[in-house]
Amino acid sequence: MGSTERIKNVARRVAKWHDAGYQIVVVPSAMSGETNRLIGLAKEIMEQPDPRELDMLASTGEQVSVALLSMALHAVGKEAVSYAGWQVAIRTDSAYTKARIQSIDDAKVRKDLDAGKIVIITGFQGVDGDGNIATLGRGGSDTSAVAIAVAMKAQECQIYTDVDGVYTTDPRVVSDARLLKTVTFEEMLEMASLGSKVLQIRSVEFAGNYKMPTRVLSSLTDPMIPLEEEAASGTLISFEEDTHMEQAAITGIAFNRDEAKITVLGVPDKPGIAYQILGPIADANIEVDMIIQNQSVDGKTDFTFTVPRGDHAKSMEVLKSVKEHIGAVSIAGDAKVSKVSVVGVGMRSHVGIASQMFRTLSEEGINILMISTSEIKISVLIDEKYMELAVRALHKAFDLEKA
Amino acid sequence: MGSTERIKNVARRVAKWHDAGYQIVVVPSAMSGETNRLIGLAKEIMEQPDPRELDMLASTGEQVSVALLSMALHAVGKEAVSYAGWQVAIRTDSAYTKARIQSIDDAKVRKDLDAGKIVIITGFQGVDGDGNIATLGRGGSDTSAVAIAVAMKAQECQIYTDVDGVYTTDPRVVSDARLLKTVTFEEMLEMASLGSKVLQIRSVEFAGNYKMPTRVLSSLTDPMIPLEEEAASGTLISFEEDTHMEQAAITGIAFNRDEAKITVLGVPDKPGIAYQILGPIADANIEVDMIIQNQSVDGKTDFTFTVPRGDHAKSMEVLKSVKEHIGAVSIAGDAKVSKVSVVGVGMRSHVGIASQMFRTLSEEGINILMISTSEIKISVLIDEKYMELAVRALHKAFDLEKA
Repeated sequence: MGSTERIKNVARRVAKWHDAGYQIVVVPSAMSGETNRLIGLAKEIMEQPDPRELDMLASTGEQVSVALLSMALHAVGKEAVSYAGWQVAIRTDSAYTKARIQSIDDAKVRKDLDAGKIVIITGFQGVDGDGNIATLGRGGSDTSAVAIAVAMKAQECQIYTDVDGVYTTDPRVVSDARLLKTVTFEEMLEMASLGSKVLQIRSVEFAGNYKMPTRVLSSLTDPMIPLEEEAASGTLISFEEDTHMEQAAITGIAFNRDEAKITVLGVPDKPGIAYQILGPIADANIEVDMIIQNQSVDGKTDFTFTVPRGDHAKSMEVLKSVKEHIGAVSIAGDAKVSKVSVVGVGMRSHVGIASQMFRTLSEEGINILMISTSEIKISVLIDEKYMELAVRALHKAFDLEKA
Repeated sequence: MGSTERIKNVARRVAKWHDAGYQIVVVPSAMSGETNRLIGLAKEIMEQPDPRELDMLASTGEQVSVALLSMALHAVGKEAVSYAGWQVAIRTDSAYTKARIQSIDDAKVRKDLDAGKIVIITGFQGVDGDGNIATLGRGGSDTSAVAIAVAMKAQECQIYTDVDGVYTTDPRVVSDARLLKTVTFEEMLEMASLGSKVLQIRSVEFAGNYKMPTRVLSSLTDPMIPLEEEAASGTLISFEEDTHMEQAAITGIAFNRDEAKITVLGVPDKPGIAYQILGPIADANIEVDMIIQNQSVDGKTDFTFTVPRGDHAKSMEVLKSVKEHIGAVSIAGDAKVSKVSVVGVGMRSHVGIASQMFRTLSEEGINILMISTSEIKISVLIDEKYMELAVRALHKAFDLEKA
């Protein structure tokens, strides 16, 4: 939510649904910029604030939003009541700044809904077993919304965002990218984790685990557009592959620009070497994505993996400090690589997807640096300067602009 | 608390006391401007927001402060933990925006203190029996601090403000006004309620009811001044009249600039007339201070009272609407009057205070419009243009510049 004007628009939209007879729980995010402002204050005080205190601080952003939205609903004549996570017992573990929801007590909310009230609950946060506030981390409001929808046995969880749904790829890269009416939960997971940052990945996992129909739709439309139109807009994350699945083999092209590749050259090819290399990386809290170990020659091998670009320098440092210990000849890094993936549950029943992908890239003269595959996606690492070209070529090759 | 720089200073000051072996609970206020910012957002949404939601909103200001102060204490190497009111069970009634504290559970705080931690608790707020956040109203942090000090059986409650204590009168009006080392609880009540807005009046009442020694001192001094010097600074509100009382008959001159006077002329002097006039005023939530009913002539009387100047127009309206009903001839108002009071427990044992006050004002040619007295104060209403003159003359007449 942005300004108070936007909050008033949210209220009008919610009131429209309530007028149509729906019971509604709303989980608003913090006002835009607010979470950053709060964390900025903390950083002015110390570089690494205590996570519990950081949660105490950051959780206020959503509390401001719920109170204002409740007032805005009162202003349009609705009964509404706001709650902080602890007030409706959104119980979490104690992993401050990245807590996980353990349980939600629906009794209080159910009672309010049955009394005709609209209930507004802070996202992003809950309370641990000792009564401390714990936040779920960035984007946690999405996860809260899905979790609350599950607890309330909601018909649908609608997530209003600043995009109007999930596209076959980023429309800023491919102008005729097409809005998907449905995606499966697994596709959404791949699209989200591969950089189509529409929804927080944990919220998608949550929706998947509990089979909660979840719709991504735009918060930027006129709040008074007809209900039927709004209800059918955006992208529904579905859990019934057979009925909802689109016919094409490929659903979309995901990509992630900010990758970096690291190669450890000439290490002895012996059991445990992968752990010796990746252990120190994991200890430095760096997430490794793609991994390749080359065929060994004369008992020596090369070991290549990717990390987020922001962790490239740190990864190089870590490896240089253990280089002697692991017996590597040298360490090479490349921070100008990107990942492009074709994603689709249809892949399971279609053959030749990989070869079509590789042929397309080859025809554009794009060299593939690394490959990784799963049941529903094929990812390649390429030079970052070819990324847009690769995405456009693949989007066209798989006819994704056509419904 | 102002900027994060000020929060760091508060942390240094608190750490100094902790280093000296004290167990400390800190109740910081919201950062300056924050409460106004939040209420401003609410007003953008609706003119009269729901009080419960307003409390949900406004209480976040203090939550931000406690988290930041806790971090600032960590930054100077102290163990500290912050709590919102609901987390340490500061139980209030449900009179949102003006709730009263009913009880405080000291167990959790005691345990932290015994473990060597500094405990930081949100002021201004608590939680009602149904788990709703309730605030104590403006300045409520002072009241929270005293209430927590009482619950913890503290040795002293120190209230750091932007003034360095309680003066014989406002130093902006009388340049040689003198800082009082001690005032009695009753004097402080009169000084506060008469417009020397150093402490919220409810906090003084609370301190009085529980005989909690409370010191008002400056937050603007260097946080690293010697502890002994700081401990003896400011003004101590005392509960032992005999030992702490200063010898002078008068302790200080209080004043309130923003008064308004209303006179209802020619009403029938019959039982119930005061209620008929003041009832509608009370119903409009307007506080009446001084009241005079004139001697009746021919069964008719004039009825005069004062209200805060901001309520003058509304009071006139209210009375005009009931004028016929109460049988008044006319209603007259004067919004340019001020109240000046001499205050002192010493008054009890001294005679002639009133006559000296009236003589002093008379010598300055100041006409007295109304008079009211209590055991420890005499207040007069005068034309506002004479207010400063009256305060200076009385301050001098009672030798208040001399220790």
